[in-house]
Amino acid sequence: MTFQLTVLYLQPDDPAAFDAYYEATHAPLAVKIPGLRGYTAMRPSTGPDGSAPAEYLVATLLFDDAASLAEGLGSPEGDAAARDIRKFATGGATMLTGEVTTYV
Amino acid sequence: MTFQLTVLYLQPDDPAAFDAYYEATHAPLAVKIPGLRGYTAMRPSTGPDGSAPAEYLVATLLFDDAASLAEGLGSPEGDAAARDIRKFATGGATMLTGEVTTYV
Repeated sequence: MTFQLTVLYLQPDDPAAFDAYYEATHAPLAVKIPGLRGYTAMRPSTGPDGSAPAEYLVATLLFDDAASLAEGLGSPEGDAAARDIRKFATGGATMLTGEVTTYV
Repeated sequence: MTFQLTVLYLQPDDPAAFDAYYEATHAPLAVKIPGLRGYTAMRPSTGPDGSAPAEYLVATLLFDDAASLAEGLGSPEGDAAARDIRKFATGGATMLTGEVTTYV
């Protein structure tokens, strides 16, 4: 069983500043969350017509189960990472959690 | 290197019908996409206040690189899976593609 936290970051005011902060400060905080089994980020490409998607970065964090996710986010490290989001996510961010179904 | 396709499905008109179609028809089509290295789906939980998030299902499809993703989506199997989306995604769906950065 796997439980997933997806964080959808919308386009920030200053993408370069967002990227610099994410790499230097946020990701290093997030990797410390206890029970984290996987953590990736994907920055959606610009569409065929040159338009930017509403989402700027899709972060995927994996945990063994719902309890591990709750414990991880409730830990001091999880709290620090969650509180850090407001410091750079100038476009807003949505956190989604749920059980993973694996097809491949 | 890994390239990711994220499909964000918004709340459908009939969640039970969406789920039944997704499992019986759509996922079996999507697993046939050539070059697919990973494919999962996550259904976000209801929030602490009981409200449903805008997103109903987050699908994550992984490919070796951008060329593999383009070839996979451009294949007959990829085309069939993409055309199938309109048949059940009554709330709409957003497709996002980009390179993956792995932290954990």
